[in-house]
Amino acid sequence: MRMVDIIEKKRDGGELNPEEIEFAISGYTRGDIPDYQMAALTMAIFFRDMSPAERAELTMAMVRSGDQIDLSGIEGIKVDKHSTGGVGDTTTLVLAPLVASVGVPVAKMSGRGLGHTGGTIDKLESIPGFHVEIDNSTFNDLVNRNKVAVVGQSGNLTPADKKLYALRDVTATVNSIPLIASSIMSKKIASGANAIVLDVKTGSGAFMKDIEAARELARAMMEIGNSVGRRTVAILSDMSQPLGYAVGNALEVKEAINTLRGQGPKDLEELCLVLGSEMVYLGGKADSPKAARAMLLESIRSGRALETFRTFICAQGGDPSVVEHPDQLPTAPYQIEIKAQECGDVSSIQADAIGTAAMLLGAGRATKDSVIDLAVGIVLVRKVGDSVERGDTLAVLHSNTKQAEEVVRRVQAAYAISSQKVSAPSLLYKL
Amino acid sequence: MRMVDIIEKKRDGGELNPEEIEFAISGYTRGDIPDYQMAALTMAIFFRDMSPAERAELTMAMVRSGDQIDLSGIEGIKVDKHSTGGVGDTTTLVLAPLVASVGVPVAKMSGRGLGHTGGTIDKLESIPGFHVEIDNSTFNDLVNRNKVAVVGQSGNLTPADKKLYALRDVTATVNSIPLIASSIMSKKIASGANAIVLDVKTGSGAFMKDIEAARELARAMMEIGNSVGRRTVAILSDMSQPLGYAVGNALEVKEAINTLRGQGPKDLEELCLVLGSEMVYLGGKADSPKAARAMLLESIRSGRALETFRTFICAQGGDPSVVEHPDQLPTAPYQIEIKAQECGDVSSIQADAIGTAAMLLGAGRATKDSVIDLAVGIVLVRKVGDSVERGDTLAVLHSNTKQAEEVVRRVQAAYAISSQKVSAPSLLYKL
Repeated sequence: MRMVDIIEKKRDGGELNPEEIEFAISGYTRGDIPDYQMAALTMAIFFRDMSPAERAELTMAMVRSGDQIDLSGIEGIKVDKHSTGGVGDTTTLVLAPLVASVGVPVAKMSGRGLGHTGGTIDKLESIPGFHVEIDNSTFNDLVNRNKVAVVGQSGNLTPADKKLYALRDVTATVNSIPLIASSIMSKKIASGANAIVLDVKTGSGAFMKDIEAARELARAMMEIGNSVGRRTVAILSDMSQPLGYAVGNALEVKEAINTLRGQGPKDLEELCLVLGSEMVYLGGKADSPKAARAMLLESIRSGRALETFRTFICAQGGDPSVVEHPDQLPTAPYQIEIKAQECGDVSSIQADAIGTAAMLLGAGRATKDSVIDLAVGIVLVRKVGDSVERGDTLAVLHSNTKQAEEVVRRVQAAYAISSQKVSAPSLLYKL
Repeated sequence: MRMVDIIEKKRDGGELNPEEIEFAISGYTRGDIPDYQMAALTMAIFFRDMSPAERAELTMAMVRSGDQIDLSGIEGIKVDKHSTGGVGDTTTLVLAPLVASVGVPVAKMSGRGLGHTGGTIDKLESIPGFHVEIDNSTFNDLVNRNKVAVVGQSGNLTPADKKLYALRDVTATVNSIPLIASSIMSKKIASGANAIVLDVKTGSGAFMKDIEAARELARAMMEIGNSVGRRTVAILSDMSQPLGYAVGNALEVKEAINTLRGQGPKDLEELCLVLGSEMVYLGGKADSPKAARAMLLESIRSGRALETFRTFICAQGGDPSVVEHPDQLPTAPYQIEIKAQECGDVSSIQADAIGTAAMLLGAGRATKDSVIDLAVGIVLVRKVGDSVERGDTLAVLHSNTKQAEEVVRRVQAAYAISSQKVSAPSLLYKL
């Protein structure tokens, strides 16, 4: 088998068979196939697309390229959730204890990553004492006992995907549905999930700005998951403005606690209920997503969700008193209010601009070595559809410096206010 | 400027500007741009094509990537001929002295190359004493005095093209009209030609098997040449069977001598007259290709063409007596006749199969280090449209071994004989 023939076949619109895909991916991982041949193949895939069978094979070839996490020591159906990423997305912090509280095991492996704010682990580490350095058997025990635990990513998962992603980044082949879908799904599958709920975001703050492309990606990932024996459901949700109010690490933990208490932002709560219902249903703990939703609402109402969060924090060394006293979380020394310059209805809040502003305050990582300030961030006060008077507070910066003119300017510019009546955008879209 | 943005622009169907093309080609030549980015760009070009302006810019960027031959010391308009390659293509050996004999300077730079037979230089070196190791000023003097000289390729011509071609070869991006056209044209332009006559071949023995693709390539090259100030004409000619009768080095020299004497194969003679007429016309020695043709015919009839060949050989150290005594050229010890197994009309002779057979006899190079046997090759006795009886000789192998069963089998298989009446194929096609 020769790589050049595989490239040519794809270039001419042919369907690659499993042996050809395995040859290309395993050879590339080993370094036997050079970057330039893989670059030509990915560009050919960009133009020619891949069939459902090819996408599934590509995903599994990337799964086989490295370690695969074995979660068989954990009882029950392990359901993982994945979001394609956005601004102020606190869902994981809410969903992990919420879903666990009704008996679905949440064995969460999480990274730190780059972005506007830290990853789930960074956020949780804003709780004094909380840590994720636990070994495999402790991790399994914790999940079996409490139904939820979070551990840092370890092992060499999907090295083919890592190498391929770095190559795509410099060869203008990132933006390809089969390549994006197989990249995401390979990581989820290698992490050991039995079932997967996908939160595919669309709008200005999302990776997929365009709803049609987001829909195509969601369908592609569902098709891959279901065809390789992982029940997979996708939700299409709005990221035209930040989700919830908080964008920042400790700020989002506080917001998650409020949400588990039934006092969170309505959009965040609703999205958590929708995603959570699918997780509980796939986890076999309810006969329908509708029945699952009722269970989750009852868990919030009864305080069981919050109690699960407390137990989870405690089990990983964290101080559970933050649940009652969120002021014990790190706090920034300066709160700077952003005022409306005119009256009217908020017509848009550019999510990516808010994310960049939070990062400038120190909430996220620009490079792997950046140090995150867990206290800083932005709390939105007004969202799209809200009416404001001139001088009303639109948002509050939580900053470690008084001099934040650049960030103020950016947040101000991210808000658009219209003299016309504006209604809040839909949170969910039909798939 | 970033290469990834250039790739993306082309991927999305944009037109690259001269600065972007220069950036990509000069950076790639220097090694600043890696193979994988160039591979992605060439695959994007494969799918998106290039505009006439982009093709011209790409060609000139490759010309600028290395040395450019200065032929200004040679009087007159330097017209070069290029063939896209075929089997038994003896035209250069005939055209060089033929065109020179009517006053058009032929300053031929030639390579050895890989292929079914050697290159023009290999063929000429079958003449005892002939050599191409002459310095630049001798080369210029010879062309000024005799109107014809042949020298080996020297200098670092179009390194970008060499590097790019090697990359395309392993990334399935050879077969792209803008890339093929700019590759060929850059080499011709860097070699110093003022005007160019292109012989684009089509059929089983050609690089472009399909006539529509050959036509597109011919037009693309004409457009590039004319848009960068090199008058360029293209001819579309048949390579569905080998041209002339001889396939081999010394065998083709013999055939060229016969043709210059007016006793060559009709198809070879006609193609030489057509190409030569365009060369003489572009060289400014005739008011029309038609008038040029009359001059060439007269030169053959009068013996002036053959005399020019003799002078040319002599000037480069060769023994001119081979013109009168072609038996002084290297001769293979064994002549093996291939006989017709049935009667009928020859309906096809697979040119590439004949080429491969000649190569197996030792006439060509498979790798750069192969040693060529100048004596061996194949002489066709029957061509398409000829009638044969069972037992008639179809072709004669000139071999250095008696054991040539494999080659015999291949040549036999290359011939198809039909019980139906077959006419000879057209030699030339409309552009």
